[in-house]
Amino acid sequence: MYHSESIKIYDALLSNIDTFVGSTVFTMGDISIQIEGKDGIGNLIEEWLSVWFKYNDFDADQVGGSQQFPDFLVGADRSSLEIKTFDGDKSPNFDLANFDSYCESMKDDESKTDCDYLIISYSLIGSTLRIKNIWLKKIWEITCPCSQYPLKVQQKRGVIYNIRPATWYSDNAKFKPFNSKWEFVNALQETLNIYNENKL
Amino acid sequence: MYHSESIKIYDALLSNIDTFVGSTVFTMGDISIQIEGKDGIGNLIEEWLSVWFKYNDFDADQVGGSQQFPDFLVGADRSSLEIKTFDGDKSPNFDLANFDSYCESMKDDESKTDCDYLIISYSLIGSTLRIKNIWLKKIWEITCPCSQYPLKVQQKRGVIYNIRPATWYSDNAKFKPFNSKWEFVNALQETLNIYNENKL
Repeated sequence: MYHSESIKIYDALLSNIDTFVGSTVFTMGDISIQIEGKDGIGNLIEEWLSVWFKYNDFDADQVGGSQQFPDFLVGADRSSLEIKTFDGDKSPNFDLANFDSYCESMKDDESKTDCDYLIISYSLIGSTLRIKNIWLKKIWEITCPCSQYPLKVQQKRGVIYNIRPATWYSDNAKFKPFNSKWEFVNALQETLNIYNENKL
Repeated sequence: MYHSESIKIYDALLSNIDTFVGSTVFTMGDISIQIEGKDGIGNLIEEWLSVWFKYNDFDADQVGGSQQFPDFLVGADRSSLEIKTFDGDKSPNFDLANFDSYCESMKDDESKTDCDYLIISYSLIGSTLRIKNIWLKKIWEITCPCSQYPLKVQQKRGVIYNIRPATWYSDNAKFKPFNSKWEFVNALQETLNIYNENKL
């Protein structure tokens, strides 16, 4: 189901997970600080990961610009690999995709649903960063329904912004991940229908 | 117009601007990298700034969580100071505020418009970070109309997401910043009216 290069990357990361401890030192002028804020950490891990891929001879090219989809192209067939990071001391809270853009991209081409997601949770205690866990997933394995819509989304004042992740690893989660790509695609379509009806 | 503590901070930063050169080193496992990506830089500068404030005895307390408004409370009257950073080799592209939330907060209390904005532009060439410029502004001095609305906003597929900045320092900008708080407040209100009419 996952790309063979994604699987190799995932296996190698997992087998080295205990060594992934570190920190960030930011220097400007005569002040050097050990970073304790979590807001930029995901971007730093992603940049580190691209170096780690090269260092370990993985066939993965960064696409450039973390705003772009996907983050990496892997293997000879340039398959999509997206990186997501989150604070492992909380529930996953990253944006999987802009809801409108994702719906729009599905009209012409459903290949976006085939993308592999490499998900990394970290713990930052003081300035000490540790990788806590690593997952390799498809989008339907990390998305779920929510109380208001068939697909869990982030909304503010009735406007849907982003597709948000399930707590896919928790046995106690109220909403479980989907069981197949088709369940996810249907939930996406139904959510769009309900959303459009509500807007009328 | 600006808070006296904000002015002191601004003056001190500006007089030291030439010394604000630095870099970010991220270490995990046996790989150390000099960060060359711009995505997390703003958060790092903000964290550095909070240390610089303490180091220089400014009366500025970080509110905690860069998602929250404001970033700092300054002076005895706990006045709002918001920090914005952007890549000075491009036009400002930060989000000033979520459009809906800002409109909502204005209903009960217009004090949000009195907030001081300390804006820092940087240049990252390779891994060398330099502070290029610093401004102290009110929101109406860094916002402007746009072609579709009386207030420049970020929108995707007809949905307004955020209030976006003018290129306030440019003589060639097509849209100039507002001249007063009232111009800004009116533009916000008119934009909301047009947006709501369009949704009907």
